[in-house]
Amino acid sequence: MITSPTLILDTEKVKKNIKRMMTKANELNVELRPHFKTHQSHEIGRWFRDSGVQGITVSSIKMAEYFCYDGWSSITIAFPVNILEANRLDDLAEKIDIRVLATHFEVLRRLNDSISNEIGVYIELDPGYNRSGIPIDEFETLLQLKSFILDSDKLRFEGFYTHAGHSYKCRSKKEIEELVHPILEDLAKLKNEFNDPICFGDTPSCSVLDDFGSISQISPGNFVFYDWTQFNIGSCNIEDIGVAMFCPVVAKYPRRNELLIHGGAVHFSKDSFTDESGNTLFGVVTNKEESGWGKVIDGVSLKSISQEHGIIQCTPFYFNEVHIGDIIPILPIHSCLMADLMGGYVTPNNENIDHLSLKIYLK
Amino acid sequence: MITSPTLILDTEKVKKNIKRMMTKANELNVELRPHFKTHQSHEIGRWFRDSGVQGITVSSIKMAEYFCYDGWSSITIAFPVNILEANRLDDLAEKIDIRVLATHFEVLRRLNDSISNEIGVYIELDPGYNRSGIPIDEFETLLQLKSFILDSDKLRFEGFYTHAGHSYKCRSKKEIEELVHPILEDLAKLKNEFNDPICFGDTPSCSVLDDFGSISQISPGNFVFYDWTQFNIGSCNIEDIGVAMFCPVVAKYPRRNELLIHGGAVHFSKDSFTDESGNTLFGVVTNKEESGWGKVIDGVSLKSISQEHGIIQCTPFYFNEVHIGDIIPILPIHSCLMADLMGGYVTPNNENIDHLSLKIYLK
Repeated sequence: MITSPTLILDTEKVKKNIKRMMTKANELNVELRPHFKTHQSHEIGRWFRDSGVQGITVSSIKMAEYFCYDGWSSITIAFPVNILEANRLDDLAEKIDIRVLATHFEVLRRLNDSISNEIGVYIELDPGYNRSGIPIDEFETLLQLKSFILDSDKLRFEGFYTHAGHSYKCRSKKEIEELVHPILEDLAKLKNEFNDPICFGDTPSCSVLDDFGSISQISPGNFVFYDWTQFNIGSCNIEDIGVAMFCPVVAKYPRRNELLIHGGAVHFSKDSFTDESGNTLFGVVTNKEESGWGKVIDGVSLKSISQEHGIIQCTPFYFNEVHIGDIIPILPIHSCLMADLMGGYVTPNNENIDHLSLKIYLK
Repeated sequence: MITSPTLILDTEKVKKNIKRMMTKANELNVELRPHFKTHQSHEIGRWFRDSGVQGITVSSIKMAEYFCYDGWSSITIAFPVNILEANRLDDLAEKIDIRVLATHFEVLRRLNDSISNEIGVYIELDPGYNRSGIPIDEFETLLQLKSFILDSDKLRFEGFYTHAGHSYKCRSKKEIEELVHPILEDLAKLKNEFNDPICFGDTPSCSVLDDFGSISQISPGNFVFYDWTQFNIGSCNIEDIGVAMFCPVVAKYPRRNELLIHGGAVHFSKDSFTDESGNTLFGVVTNKEESGWGKVIDGVSLKSISQEHGIIQCTPFYFNEVHIGDIIPILPIHSCLMADLMGGYVTPNNENIDHLSLKIYLK
């Protein structure tokens, strides 16, 4: 019985999301190296393995260690290599195929001097997102970095890695395509010049593209769960969203048609979504059903949160329907951060699913 | 040696913050029942105990259980009672003095029928924050709730509880006073009518007020650490901020004068601060010093974060000073959420301090 905020995972939906992306990767002849930062779970990782996935992507060395422990033998840490962690990387590289991203000579030189086991290196490209990586058109820098890697006997050149995170600003399939097509053209020129593997990965692009051009690997992550933001970007249908937070209604305030739930920033994260009318949402309320959750309820949303409190703005009809002690399912704005905060999942059949943060019994 | 994002706690500053609030409470003759949701730590809790604190405040039953385990014998769960947790509450009430907030008859009736041990009840008042509680001027409702509690042989009336969370919107001591004084006047009228204890608590009010009027208990939480938001509200000096995240510099991007650090939403939280020029900040960069951190560096801030990545906007001077592999201390926008995410603290002397979420070895 649910009595406090609980992150429910719909096994069928999640497995369907995995299968859909895997089928697409197979059909379009690219290797799916899914990003596991979204779920951070051994068990969910095994569902990917059952679908045929062999290599994965993570965003920290701790995550790499966690998945190495569960038998994954090829892991990309999709972050410019942190030279302070060279020893930990070297330890991992002794056991499995570890790959990192590189953007600086100096770091590659220091990495090369610090390790005794072979480490794979992708050069990270910045496709205009301005987060990290070398601009795609800086061929000379890319060439110099590549030469250095090729000359090293401890670094193994894996090709190029790029993440078009600015696709999260899109609001339709068309907008995603308009953003990504020029990037794909740039990558085609790069492929032409270097003829090396290119890994590309963000959930919006990977969800909507029907042709990956010169790309040979993809590494989306969020698609395993999707969320309200991805639905609004145009990456998925509402029915594809695979996780929801179930929260108890603790108080009702008739003067303002609002409910107080137990469910706040330590459960949902402070990530928010601004809708067309300019309203800020921290979650979207759905109907509760026997087997999980159902349709989104128009006009009802999580409008504000503090550390443990959440305020649900209601329609008068919904306000009257809901009672104190009810449990209401709320779709996440950003499923990755919600999962990281909750540190575990529960299925509608009340089975626990692990998460790196291991907080399932603590909240 | 720090190699990944690490939450450093300055023991001296934190102990000074505790002592300052305790001294004030003693001088103004109110009981300090500090809110422990900010630190969620047994060890930091003991520093409060050493200062003479006897009763505490938390925001979930899990937190109450955590602090009961460390010997606290009087705990307020500052949340309208969640009737679904009545059994867990009853178990706690068998061991210690547990107090909850109430806003609804129906819930009190069900609570009364579900427990066998005595539970203390504060009626929660809404001072205009519109989060939870009964408006202060609804005397009739308050009277009816109070009568019900007095008539019950399992519920013990503790008085009134109120949290003026809208003080977080203030931007000076004067603005805090202008917001809080009318609330204090309303509470004085209530005191006149009911003559029951009133507990009041938010860090801005408790930090700046020199007179608590008819209030007999205060329960601020954030003051133990403070943060960049509290400094801007007018609650503290920059030097009072007791925690900072130490993050490694992983890459430098000269074209845009920006650094990439390991340090993102899973470390800082997505809470942000908008400065006077309309810039969004996720953290504020300071100088690193032998014993911890020093002065804030003008024009250098954490301007954007994703799950694990953080982008530091630099001045040209700072950009040239900083090197890949350096560790930079960053003051939090919201220390409570940062501590919850990090699940542990490290002192400059490399001692670990516990947190309910116990993630210190995991990130």
